[in-house]
Amino acid sequence: MGHDNVEFRSTITPDGQLRVQLEPVALPDPQAGQLLVKVEAAPINPSDLGLMFGAADMESLAMEGAVLTARVPEKAMPAMKARVGQSLPVGNEGAGTVIAAGPNQQHLIGKRVAMLGGAMYARLRLIDAADCLVLPEGASAEEGAALFINPLTALGFVETMRAEGHTAIVHAPAASNLGQMLLRICNADGIGLVNIVRSPAQAQMLRDQGARHVVDSSAGSFQTDLNEAIARTGATLCFDAIGGGELTSTVLNAMEQVLARSMSSYDRYGSPVLKQGYIYGGLDTGPSVLRRGFGFSWSVGGWLLFRVLERLGPDTVAQMHTRILAEMRTTFASQYNARITLEEALDPATAAAYFRKSTGTKYLLTPAG
Amino acid sequence: MGHDNVEFRSTITPDGQLRVQLEPVALPDPQAGQLLVKVEAAPINPSDLGLMFGAADMESLAMEGAVLTARVPEKAMPAMKARVGQSLPVGNEGAGTVIAAGPNQQHLIGKRVAMLGGAMYARLRLIDAADCLVLPEGASAEEGAALFINPLTALGFVETMRAEGHTAIVHAPAASNLGQMLLRICNADGIGLVNIVRSPAQAQMLRDQGARHVVDSSAGSFQTDLNEAIARTGATLCFDAIGGGELTSTVLNAMEQVLARSMSSYDRYGSPVLKQGYIYGGLDTGPSVLRRGFGFSWSVGGWLLFRVLERLGPDTVAQMHTRILAEMRTTFASQYNARITLEEALDPATAAAYFRKSTGTKYLLTPAG
Repeated sequence: MGHDNVEFRSTITPDGQLRVQLEPVALPDPQAGQLLVKVEAAPINPSDLGLMFGAADMESLAMEGAVLTARVPEKAMPAMKARVGQSLPVGNEGAGTVIAAGPNQQHLIGKRVAMLGGAMYARLRLIDAADCLVLPEGASAEEGAALFINPLTALGFVETMRAEGHTAIVHAPAASNLGQMLLRICNADGIGLVNIVRSPAQAQMLRDQGARHVVDSSAGSFQTDLNEAIARTGATLCFDAIGGGELTSTVLNAMEQVLARSMSSYDRYGSPVLKQGYIYGGLDTGPSVLRRGFGFSWSVGGWLLFRVLERLGPDTVAQMHTRILAEMRTTFASQYNARITLEEALDPATAAAYFRKSTGTKYLLTPAG
Repeated sequence: MGHDNVEFRSTITPDGQLRVQLEPVALPDPQAGQLLVKVEAAPINPSDLGLMFGAADMESLAMEGAVLTARVPEKAMPAMKARVGQSLPVGNEGAGTVIAAGPNQQHLIGKRVAMLGGAMYARLRLIDAADCLVLPEGASAEEGAALFINPLTALGFVETMRAEGHTAIVHAPAASNLGQMLLRICNADGIGLVNIVRSPAQAQMLRDQGARHVVDSSAGSFQTDLNEAIARTGATLCFDAIGGGELTSTVLNAMEQVLARSMSSYDRYGSPVLKQGYIYGGLDTGPSVLRRGFGFSWSVGGWLLFRVLERLGPDTVAQMHTRILAEMRTTFASQYNARITLEEALDPATAAAYFRKSTGTKYLLTPAG
């Protein structure tokens, strides 16, 4: 006996059309170790948008019957090659209620769980129980919807810092849900954090939440402010979700200028202290520009949650999960500004809005209605 | 009793003038462990040029009496801040004959040595015996002049490759003395090497020396050729002395495209295999531009010989020295196109010529005349 499901799917055709639609699929009964979950809430994270829209021109969004379409520019097609013609399910994480379960998981029926693993933008999700966290009694789906990506990412930054011998962090953009989580973690753990934001309002918001080092990149004093914040924290590690442009470069140069203050003599190769930048997102998909005024002890690299968790190992990840559940309503709480159904997510104007990814406007999908 | 010496010195004044001149200095007698060496040959490496000329405008070279001068553009002065007003000696390596020695090093008098350690552009060099390699009987100063920087760098690339789990190397620009050394090492050790050159003549030169994978960046087929060479070698590591521009980015994208061929399904985060680029020089001091079409498993960083040797440890470095001496006339031989005295190095036209750093034109200083 199958379970009728509807999945939110994204396809790029060989002739360069993006097609996003709801696709009916049938799910089998859950086997041993599996759960069938009614998806009640799933956040739209930046990492979901990349899969949803690929390199499509967002100015060209339109409806063709029940299909949301857009044009993929010809020059972007080579980068899309590997996914052309494939109907890809979307949605990295979500939460919902268990409605059926494998023989050894019957005790979970009726429980609410948080889930990680793709294809969450759907009415139903068949999932390994191992990829779920059982939520405490009374927790809402909205509270459980985003307990993996942002919380693990924020904790992953801190664990990366420890593993690689740094003692403080620069983060941009810092006013995001993730940035606010990172702030709460760093304040709780006594870790220096330089928060780079893009407006005075964002700066005030973070200060109201207890941030001590907030630097506004829209201010004329940005460069000086950044240097001072780095000097006060001793940060030599930066996490940058913007990716394109010069932000990581600016931060590494600021670190070098601060380190140079304490060098007793000129070294044309710069400070020997490693300045590390990680690009963990691509809010700006344009090229990253590095002005190499930071000597030779520097590194810039990609940072991807799933691969980092693998390197950190299962014990560290288990500790992270324990902390996330214990602090789900405080440290790891997310705020949403809009709640939309799967059908509404196909509307061109709505899609353009949630694609904009501006900090502080966060969408939650509610597939179960 | 002192020894009269003359050192080639570079100063940038607070008002933005570069001043390069020969400065008389007196050297004391060598103490225990020290040698006094008459400098007979010292190469002009790219790493020397940075110290010699800083950020000076090379169009403004002129003579003021016996001083070679140039203007440092105002916007470049902040980067020079740490060296302003200091008279800096130049010359990373050289060779010469021991003319005096500390009490326990008397047996080295009359021997020819290769030296590492700065201030080599001088008539004399007082140096720790530990920073010298004693050359075999009959070796010329020219043969011994460049036995540290390029040989250790080329061997350092290979050791970095091994230490970080890569199996083949991309190198640019590959037609340099260093590139030719790396080619001989890789051929001897059976390591795949993709040589990126900038002209058909350079490509032919390397092929004549036994290079199997040569890619000419001036060719219309560069991108295709690069992908094929990377596919054939399996290279996931690149060393780039150019620094500015898009070369490292182009190589990392080519690696990703090759890795994507063997991926069974689309992964929007790209291949999980780490693609590593190291920038070890700055022939182009402009910004490095990264077009991030290579997923999230990538890293680009600075690579500086002295710091890498420290990480590799004394045993590895000692093995390198042994090999360099054993193969100084084959693997590690350098070619020079011009020999100039210290005085000639101050001539504006000559300085402009050796500054040009074009591959294949290599200058040797002969301080002893």
